[in-house]
Amino acid sequence: MRQAGRYLPEYRAMRERYGFLQLARNPEAAAEVTLQPVDRLGVDAAILFADILLIVEPLGVGLEFAKGEGPVIHRPVRTEAQVARLGAIDVDGAVPFVFEAVRRVKQALGGKVPLIGFAGAPFTVASYVVEGGPSRDYLHTKRLMFEEPDGWARLMGILVDATARYLNGQIAAGAEAVQIFDSWVGVLAPDDYRAFVMPHTQALIRALTRGTPVIHFGTGTAALLPHMRAAGGDVIGLDWRVDLDTAWATVGHDVAVQGNLDPAVLLSKPAHIRRRVKDILDRAGGRPGHIFNLGHGVLPQTPVDHVKALVEMVHEMSARR
Amino acid sequence: MRQAGRYLPEYRAMRERYGFLQLARNPEAAAEVTLQPVDRLGVDAAILFADILLIVEPLGVGLEFAKGEGPVIHRPVRTEAQVARLGAIDVDGAVPFVFEAVRRVKQALGGKVPLIGFAGAPFTVASYVVEGGPSRDYLHTKRLMFEEPDGWARLMGILVDATARYLNGQIAAGAEAVQIFDSWVGVLAPDDYRAFVMPHTQALIRALTRGTPVIHFGTGTAALLPHMRAAGGDVIGLDWRVDLDTAWATVGHDVAVQGNLDPAVLLSKPAHIRRRVKDILDRAGGRPGHIFNLGHGVLPQTPVDHVKALVEMVHEMSARR
Repeated sequence: MRQAGRYLPEYRAMRERYGFLQLARNPEAAAEVTLQPVDRLGVDAAILFADILLIVEPLGVGLEFAKGEGPVIHRPVRTEAQVARLGAIDVDGAVPFVFEAVRRVKQALGGKVPLIGFAGAPFTVASYVVEGGPSRDYLHTKRLMFEEPDGWARLMGILVDATARYLNGQIAAGAEAVQIFDSWVGVLAPDDYRAFVMPHTQALIRALTRGTPVIHFGTGTAALLPHMRAAGGDVIGLDWRVDLDTAWATVGHDVAVQGNLDPAVLLSKPAHIRRRVKDILDRAGGRPGHIFNLGHGVLPQTPVDHVKALVEMVHEMSARR
Repeated sequence: MRQAGRYLPEYRAMRERYGFLQLARNPEAAAEVTLQPVDRLGVDAAILFADILLIVEPLGVGLEFAKGEGPVIHRPVRTEAQVARLGAIDVDGAVPFVFEAVRRVKQALGGKVPLIGFAGAPFTVASYVVEGGPSRDYLHTKRLMFEEPDGWARLMGILVDATARYLNGQIAAGAEAVQIFDSWVGVLAPDDYRAFVMPHTQALIRALTRGTPVIHFGTGTAALLPHMRAAGGDVIGLDWRVDLDTAWATVGHDVAVQGNLDPAVLLSKPAHIRRRVKDILDRAGGRPGHIFNLGHGVLPQTPVDHVKALVEMVHEMSARR
């Protein structure tokens, strides 16, 4: 999960100086917020600070991060006719600052820990482009899928192409693994995932530079996990709404898994956090291929000391096995 | 799922005359909106119009239905100390109008179709009482569970007791089956469901009048289904985010299932609706014990003609098997 965030005072300080998009577009600042949690928390990898919507800016959809409201897309793309007017995305022209941030982070890390790159999955990025922001029911997205499947497929094709270039650019700049976030894919029926999402995510993952591990993550995916696994990824990210052992058996022990502490647990007392960490490590059973992580992003209310304590607990309990 | 709702013009007309709570508290009006969809849609059962929060009014938490915003609880109960000040709920004193509505509906139906009663599950009702309204992350609820488990258990005990009286009152007044809605339980990790919810839902279901079928429903429950089944219910309600056949195998074919069309499908063209209905009936495989239903409530934007067409399709395709 992204480590930079509002729970960190040094991140909040940066956000007082920079708007969200300003921060993402400034390679020096983006590198700094990427590195802050690595030093502060003692985690085993750095996660690139970026936003999944940066690559859609060249589509001219009017991306803005409204104060406290998350992303807004002022000119959403909802119909096949609107999709038809979209061109391909010039990724190198659009996000050179991300590749530059990757290079700076790599240099600063000096090989101490690896750097993980980061992009949205085509469905989740498309859902923002179609809805115009976060949504409860994703009705515009589902309408486009159900009523104009060719328009949906064309939009997904544009995003697959751009996301492949985006992630391959991060890899070329030095990212040692990449994460694909299909954060909102859990709103779909399994049939719709198979018909409207899986082929596109698969095309994306197949287009990535060989040899770099791919982490494929979503939330609310309990019934989608076998299909996400089929779509691809060396690591399947699990949210907290599944038992790790059952979910790992479902996707198969020949793939790695990442997860899956409920971020809300980090708001409770360290003794409770410790019990929950132990439970997840017990379910992983010391099997190689488990990456301990939260089941979704760090909540803004989380005490930094609890995150730091979590990292220490995981290190200590893993070493004892 | 509740059949009365904003998608029906005759319901909207009633809501112009009555506020939401006024409507729920007026047995004549509540009976009328319960009966409207039965006549209009040709469904196989009537579903009592009521709200899951009616039974918490006597707790003095300041329940209000703000225009267009859903329920607000002005004095949420968040700590063990606050829970300790709550008394038992006088259900008969609090909701006599619901029992009267049941009697009126029964009389008007004259045995044409059965009437299904309705209550919230203790977790979902508690989540409103603790959060003060709908929530994204349910952090106050999880805090109470994790940090003051005795306070949480006491709150759940109060709600189990009240809900048992509430549903048994509906059964005594003539309801021929009852639905328990654990709408938001899908936000929990399976471990938390087992520790903090399952025993209470089980106690509720065990306290219900024998011989009346119980439908146990939640959303986002793919990984919770075996535990919901263990908690009880003659019918397990499935949302649209699972494949019906896989989910039925998971809960066991010795229990009935209800579901599971994505409500968003009803916004698409009838030909698409027909394909999706056929798929669900195919997955049910003509096995006795499948109740066709949506995977959650009817969306307000849904054309009434599509709902009516859905009922006809299900009748027609089921008869052909």
